[in-house]
Amino acid sequence: MTDFERILARVFVEIVISIDLSDDDDIDPDVATGLLEPVAALLQEMPRADRRRLTEFMLEYANDEANAERSATALDLPTALGLVE
Amino acid sequence: MTDFERILARVFVEIVISIDLSDDDDIDPDVATGLLEPVAALLQEMPRADRRRLTEFMLEYANDEANAERSATALDLPTALGLVE
Repeated sequence: MTDFERILARVFVEIVISIDLSDDDDIDPDVATGLLEPVAALLQEMPRADRRRLTEFMLEYANDEANAERSATALDLPTALGLVE
Repeated sequence: MTDFERILARVFVEIVISIDLSDDDDIDPDVATGLLEPVAALLQEMPRADRRRLTEFMLEYANDEANAERSATALDLPTALGLVE
């Protein structure tokens, strides 16, 4: 991945994790689903090689993330967003 | 931009616009700020050429977006996220 691809992937992953881990009082779960479903649909249309690259980035992110809760969420993202079959 | 860069930029922009345009009852403005500030800080660290590429993508997105409210929000994103000086 290029530096530009990595930073774009990172800001996307950061924001999705923060949404996932937000309190239900802060972001209603239905609202969170409404934020994430359209982007999951877009990502699922990517060629398989790009889905794999983004999946690898998420696993690498999970590995590097010191916060256990954020790391676990990152690890679950490829499945949650439908990137893996 | 590569196809992979474009899809990553697009999912990021989509989600930021949706957060920006959410009702205050759905996402408290302070919570929305807490979601966006860390990613703005990351993007501001990008080399100038990448900030410019992302800015151009946002303007192009604004131009292509049929929904007037989303288009206007996209147009404001480079400034809102501190990509332009």
